Amino acid sequence: MRMRRHLTVTFLFSVTLLCSAQQSKPPALNDAVRAYIAQHRQDILREFEEFLAIPNVASDRDNIQKNAEALSSMLKKRGLQVQLLSVENAPPVVLAAFPADSSKHTVTFYAHYDGQPVNKAEWKQDPWQPTLTSRSGTGPSANIDDPEARIYARSAGDDKNSIIELLAALDALQWSRIPPSVNLKFFFEGEEEAGSPHLATILQQYPLALRSDLWVICDGPANQNGDPQLVFGSRGVITLQLTAFGPNRPLHSGHYGNWAPNPIIELAQLVARMRTTDGEITIPHFNDPVRPMTVAEQNALKNIPNVDQQLRVEMALGRIEGHGTLAEQIMKPGLNLDRIEGGGSGPNPTNSIPSWATAYIDFRLVPNQTPEIVKQQVEDFLRVQGYFLANRPPTAEERLQHPRLLQVVWGAGYPPQRTAMEQPISQAFIAAAKTVTGNSLVLLPTLGGSTPSFLFEQQFNKPVIGLPTANYDDNQHAANENLKLKNLWDGIALFAGVFGKLEWK
Amino acid sequence: MRMRRHLTVTFLFSVTLLCSAQQSKPPALNDAVRAYIAQHRQDILREFEEFLAIPNVASDRDNIQKNAEALSSMLKKRGLQVQLLSVENAPPVVLAAFPADSSKHTVTFYAHYDGQPVNKAEWKQDPWQPTLTSRSGTGPSANIDDPEARIYARSAGDDKNSIIELLAALDALQWSRIPPSVNLKFFFEGEEEAGSPHLATILQQYPLALRSDLWVICDGPANQNGDPQLVFGSRGVITLQLTAFGPNRPLHSGHYGNWAPNPIIELAQLVARMRTTDGEITIPHFNDPVRPMTVAEQNALKNIPNVDQQLRVEMALGRIEGHGTLAEQIMKPGLNLDRIEGGGSGPNPTNSIPSWATAYIDFRLVPNQTPEIVKQQVEDFLRVQGYFLANRPPTAEERLQHPRLLQVVWGAGYPPQRTAMEQPISQAFIAAAKTVTGNSLVLLPTLGGSTPSFLFEQQFNKPVIGLPTANYDDNQHAANENLKLKNLWDGIALFAGVFGKLEWK
Repeated sequence: MRMRRHLTVTFLFSVTLLCSAQQSKPPALNDAVRAYIAQHRQDILREFEEFLAIPNVASDRDNIQKNAEALSSMLKKRGLQVQLLSVENAPPVVLAAFPADSSKHTVTFYAHYDGQPVNKAEWKQDPWQPTLTSRSGTGPSANIDDPEARIYARSAGDDKNSIIELLAALDALQWSRIPPSVNLKFFFEGEEEAGSPHLATILQQYPLALRSDLWVICDGPANQNGDPQLVFGSRGVITLQLTAFGPNRPLHSGHYGNWAPNPIIELAQLVARMRTTDGEITIPHFNDPVRPMTVAEQNALKNIPNVDQQLRVEMALGRIEGHGTLAEQIMKPGLNLDRIEGGGSGPNPTNSIPSWATAYIDFRLVPNQTPEIVKQQVEDFLRVQGYFLANRPPTAEERLQHPRLLQVVWGAGYPPQRTAMEQPISQAFIAAAKTVTGNSLVLLPTLGGSTPSFLFEQQFNKPVIGLPTANYDDNQHAANENLKLKNLWDGIALFAGVFGKLEWK
Repeated sequence: MRMRRHLTVTFLFSVTLLCSAQQSKPPALNDAVRAYIAQHRQDILREFEEFLAIPNVASDRDNIQKNAEALSSMLKKRGLQVQLLSVENAPPVVLAAFPADSSKHTVTFYAHYDGQPVNKAEWKQDPWQPTLTSRSGTGPSANIDDPEARIYARSAGDDKNSIIELLAALDALQWSRIPPSVNLKFFFEGEEEAGSPHLATILQQYPLALRSDLWVICDGPANQNGDPQLVFGSRGVITLQLTAFGPNRPLHSGHYGNWAPNPIIELAQLVARMRTTDGEITIPHFNDPVRPMTVAEQNALKNIPNVDQQLRVEMALGRIEGHGTLAEQIMKPGLNLDRIEGGGSGPNPTNSIPSWATAYIDFRLVPNQTPEIVKQQVEDFLRVQGYFLANRPPTAEERLQHPRLLQVVWGAGYPPQRTAMEQPISQAFIAAAKTVTGNSLVLLPTLGGSTPSFLFEQQFNKPVIGLPTANYDDNQHAANENLKLKNLWDGIALFAGVFGKLEWK
């Protein structure tokens, strides 16, 4: 099949070269890759759909193994050497590389082949029966030439799309007889959506196989305005459950109200002292570790397209928090209140004082904050408010003993990570990407969300850059996840450009 | 059966009279009544159990009708004239009276025969299969002579107990040949637990039948220390649902956190500005209409037993709100937060910015506050905070248009009610009750909870006094509702004393 593919596009390829000669720009690589894509849409899509059809929840070990095997065979077919990096009770990392040329730098592209769990009832189709939908129809009547067409399936945008784009970019270069400018490695994780519980162990266990000068994280969305973007870091995260206590059984709010303490009001008062409705965190010293933006980061920020008005209309937001654009706001730390539990559920609250209430909070961190610093600051703050802090459910005696008592449960945390945009390797990467995107490339100093990118930086002390390609409205993590075909084709072109043009001293 | 009952206790009655003659105190009425009770425990309990066995949720119209019929026949058997007061779609009020003596005052005793809905799964038994439990065992092995024994059934404590006590008190007086000192009427409602939606209409519709000089509300618990109590009013209530809005779909708290407004934090900030953790309401001017306590109320407050330490241990409370005792605190207005909904449910919050959040609040009011004044004060406060108030779910356009937007839903409200303790009728009632209780009688200026007592006051401009007799720990409104037998016997004695001794000019 690969042979036939090469033969059928030779004519088109020649025509493209002719065109590019007449215009001098864009350079030959791009034209060749675009020609390859135009010619091979059906094949690329078929491979994508076959890959998407394998269920891929990390806890579903049989199917996750099938994904790893399919991926291995897709990689071997392209001449890559494949190694499964395993630790006990973890889906394998599929590592692939071409034989290395020691005169070149080595760049490893990270993506993940597992997907979020699904609630099939919420989907319009089976999440593992990929379905193409265009303006002309769904399935057989969909138009593959429509760049606005979308393929619906779990992991269509998060993150099997990146894997297919990387492999198709390899094919396009091979077909165009353009050699990569760096040694290429691919690192495909199988439990990112389960929180990457074994990633650190795997990185520690295979230092030689994972030697690399740069890590590229291929996960996440392109800019909301549709432009491609590079991401130089991500916010850290740490979750917190705060439980306050009232009477040991719910009490009638008439007979005991404003005498027995109300635990939801305790939490409301605490949250109100921790964070304004403008997003500003008022925990003392919280912002002290935040380092100022560099000049390069400030410049990048200025050039980020302002999508605020578009998003405000789309999301029906009458205001935004703080005084900055979305891009500026996510450069700051965040405190989000996910939920306050307590007081029961059901249609009719009973006018009771609840027995307990739990606030679910998540903090987002920026350099140089760390989860450890935040934990200390928050616990100090709570103690100054007069609270005794317990790390397990308190006994009746402890509830009676402590006038103000909280159970504090911290979740696992990620520190923030940010790669310096000024350094030569970052500048080289930007330049390589721009050979494909021109000046439409958005440079984001920090992704709002949190990724395990810090693990690569911590373990290997090498730079990490993000190259996300999905449409931002891909229903990531939700029902009816999808990828816009335009993003698939653009992603292939962008990866091919980086493969062929990335060079630094 | 009534004949046999009279005959069998004649001997005991004579013995009792003999004893009372020797000691001069307590007066003969009490001894006769106590003797009657001691002799008729089985009969009283049998009538109570038969009445409790009829399911009595107000919306269960067939069974509620059976309750009304059973009650009518229980009343007629005692020589009372019975009238069913009906309005469309409402369970009937069962009104009963003896032929009136125009030289005497008329006193109407209110109770309700309906009960709260049940969740049978939470009960140890069928809620309509009354079960007696004493230290010696349950059912047939229970000891009826154990005053700590409890009868478990829906409405055992709220409020069929009051009805049985009133009827048994009548029996005791008839048996003792002591005539009531006032004309007695009984008003038994069938939808109190459904919020008394037709009570006002019924009061308006039957003014002649309901003519009375005093209303006595027989509903609620005795003091927490076990002492009997009279209640001269109740706090009003008004419920409020406040809904704040975030993005029109939940958003990733990393990618959009501290940019898209978080509606739970909006509510936390509002609640924190409305109410301290010490129960103080900080809505401007909220307390302005609160009238000072009278001298009689202040004196009564001083004499209320302090049950705080007992309750704090029982409820595992490390502190109480405010700086007063429970009795003092419920003389003040209250703001209770029942629940904050929003952010989904289930074991794992998704680190999202919720699309909406609703705070369920209930206010408790004291004289001279009214639901109307509170509504105005709260809405003024919210507007000053910058909020546009909607009375229905806002459209996307409205969400976009108003930077700060709340949906405000007020529930039905009760104003507070308080009868002056200084007036002769109140003093006469206290004196009559004290012939039974001695100085252990607690005088409560206001019940913490809310009752429809204001309706009687408003409609008839006559005083209303509460005489509650259930044990405070009767699991009212919850599973395994119960009445302690001691409270049943004491209730009968107390009602009989009031029937026989209440007199005023």
